[in-house]
Amino acid sequence: MKITCDKQKLNEAVLNIQRAVSTKSSVPALEGILIRADEGTVLLCGYDLELGITTILDCRVEEKGSVVLSAKLFGEIVRRLPAATVTVSSDEKQMTTIQSGEAEYSIVGIPAQEYPELPAVGGESSLKIPSGILRSMIRQTLFAVADTDAKPIHTGTLFELEPDCLRLVSVDGYRLAIREEPIGCELETSFVVPGKTLAEVLKLLGDDDTKVELQIGRRHILFSIDNYTVISRLLEGEFLDYRAAVPNDCTTELKVSTQSFIGSVERVSLLITDRLKSPVRCVFGDGEIKVSCSTAIGRASDKLEARITGNALEMGFNNRFLLDALRNTECDEVRVQLNGPLSPMRVLPCEGKAFLFLVLPVRLKSSGE
Amino acid sequence: MKITCDKQKLNEAVLNIQRAVSTKSSVPALEGILIRADEGTVLLCGYDLELGITTILDCRVEEKGSVVLSAKLFGEIVRRLPAATVTVSSDEKQMTTIQSGEAEYSIVGIPAQEYPELPAVGGESSLKIPSGILRSMIRQTLFAVADTDAKPIHTGTLFELEPDCLRLVSVDGYRLAIREEPIGCELETSFVVPGKTLAEVLKLLGDDDTKVELQIGRRHILFSIDNYTVISRLLEGEFLDYRAAVPNDCTTELKVSTQSFIGSVERVSLLITDRLKSPVRCVFGDGEIKVSCSTAIGRASDKLEARITGNALEMGFNNRFLLDALRNTECDEVRVQLNGPLSPMRVLPCEGKAFLFLVLPVRLKSSGE
Repeated sequence: MKITCDKQKLNEAVLNIQRAVSTKSSVPALEGILIRADEGTVLLCGYDLELGITTILDCRVEEKGSVVLSAKLFGEIVRRLPAATVTVSSDEKQMTTIQSGEAEYSIVGIPAQEYPELPAVGGESSLKIPSGILRSMIRQTLFAVADTDAKPIHTGTLFELEPDCLRLVSVDGYRLAIREEPIGCELETSFVVPGKTLAEVLKLLGDDDTKVELQIGRRHILFSIDNYTVISRLLEGEFLDYRAAVPNDCTTELKVSTQSFIGSVERVSLLITDRLKSPVRCVFGDGEIKVSCSTAIGRASDKLEARITGNALEMGFNNRFLLDALRNTECDEVRVQLNGPLSPMRVLPCEGKAFLFLVLPVRLKSSGE
Repeated sequence: MKITCDKQKLNEAVLNIQRAVSTKSSVPALEGILIRADEGTVLLCGYDLELGITTILDCRVEEKGSVVLSAKLFGEIVRRLPAATVTVSSDEKQMTTIQSGEAEYSIVGIPAQEYPELPAVGGESSLKIPSGILRSMIRQTLFAVADTDAKPIHTGTLFELEPDCLRLVSVDGYRLAIREEPIGCELETSFVVPGKTLAEVLKLLGDDDTKVELQIGRRHILFSIDNYTVISRLLEGEFLDYRAAVPNDCTTELKVSTQSFIGSVERVSLLITDRLKSPVRCVFGDGEIKVSCSTAIGRASDKLEARITGNALEMGFNNRFLLDALRNTECDEVRVQLNGPLSPMRVLPCEGKAFLFLVLPVRLKSSGE
């Protein structure tokens, strides 16, 4: 194999591909990047058996062939090459030469035959979404994905396609995030994408109108983003019936500045440590929210304005879950609906229903504490 | 005690003072910041028994007194206070209230009596140096301070005062850094300041002409930098006779672009890991430096232009020590003097002798390897 390409473009591609590569694997090839040079095109690929990222690089192919190179070493070498172009060549024994300007490296590669085949996805149902919208949808639900394997299906986000609507749902037992957008698509299906995959997809998505294509197979999904293809297995199992989890009633409603609410909760949370856990106490009423917290370290309180209608109410929350929900609203002002001290808090945009976050309350020991 | 002050100024002071505070100590007071309010002035102090930093804060003192507060917690609280001013008050039981806007904290402090006394330094010999010059002198010698306790005296930098000249010297057995400046001072003395102290002093020094005062006691040194005072013990013991370590002869001299040399050494060093150590091989001659390295991973080589006079020469170096010396020259172009493959490399500015770095070579197994 012998290819010559632009150093900057190769560097960018390797940085993106690298994220799908295992850092530690019993199969050495999985710690590498596959380079496959065909007639005029070069494919780069990283794959950890669950998630694969590939890209086509604009190269001059002088000799077809393929090789697998350590992703970490190859990435570091490419990043520091001195000239604008780089030539990579490897012989039948996988001895690989990387040459740029006066710099030259000789390293041993791994035969491409030892690299696993990526699953084939294609010809199945597909849809197209503007990159910026998918980005916002993933970002606003990813925080609520479970980070433990207690229920493996909840380590992913549910994608629900109804005629003209895409809905993403994440849940981890303490909070729930729903995000929906109208999209022009006649598909009706649902599937669960691993949170790890979505975190990588997020890094590749731009904040613009470029269309991203999703191809949905029986066991796998494929995202086509610019020159990159992300392929991932889907999660199998029964996802929570989230509709049943959302309370319908609401005895108290408020509108509040998101930043002020975040600031107050952060301030009183300073007394909470891993060893000294305590709920954040919120008293809603009289046009204000009183936020407080006490632990063995001491006591902290703060107060902020809010437009409140309905019953006054005192509730306790896990500070981290409350902050996650507020931070992911991405709105200056937010609408909060409450239905008694033991019913989940609903966090919504002031207008519409693009997102809905639920935060489970924590039972408070006594109101005077 | 009750004081009111500007939140930004308090925050900045606490951030600086915090660096002298022990993060883990058997004496709880040492994990705290001492706040002492006197007639119209407030002193903040952090001290870990080796290094102390104090500052005087512009405050309104409503009630004199003192208290010690957890540096970590107090720092986090002050950083997040909502309003422009803050009031700190503590009662006779050290119950301390921190109040700013609607936010209020009650935390328990530690009696100031439990805080150790800082050593007294003063009335002894003193000198004044422009901040920017001291900053450059410390920065260009600190890298060569020993980081192991094998010879405790070498974990500090030697300050040598001769009439009209200040010289700083660091050495760790593999390299040596000398940095000198003419300064108007008639003192003749020498002392060794711990590297840890100098790292903190560096952070407080601005890059300007403001004068910094050094007061040198028998066992301690005091740096007065703006509103801050840094006090530190001095190291005791016999410092290396560095004059004897510097070779006088030179068979090969070269001038080279510092960045190009750094780039080439960094590039070939990519094959060196903690487990796979190998010297960087440099061949000086024919108007160029050939740099190469080989380990079990493979082989890397690079080449750069240099103006070389004298004998051609092949030498091996520890990549990290060679890079440290080159990076700390802070010059675009550098002069290198060599005296055979087993004599230390001398790194100097192209003009003058403001700094001199020595890097010990590594014996190469065979020249063809």
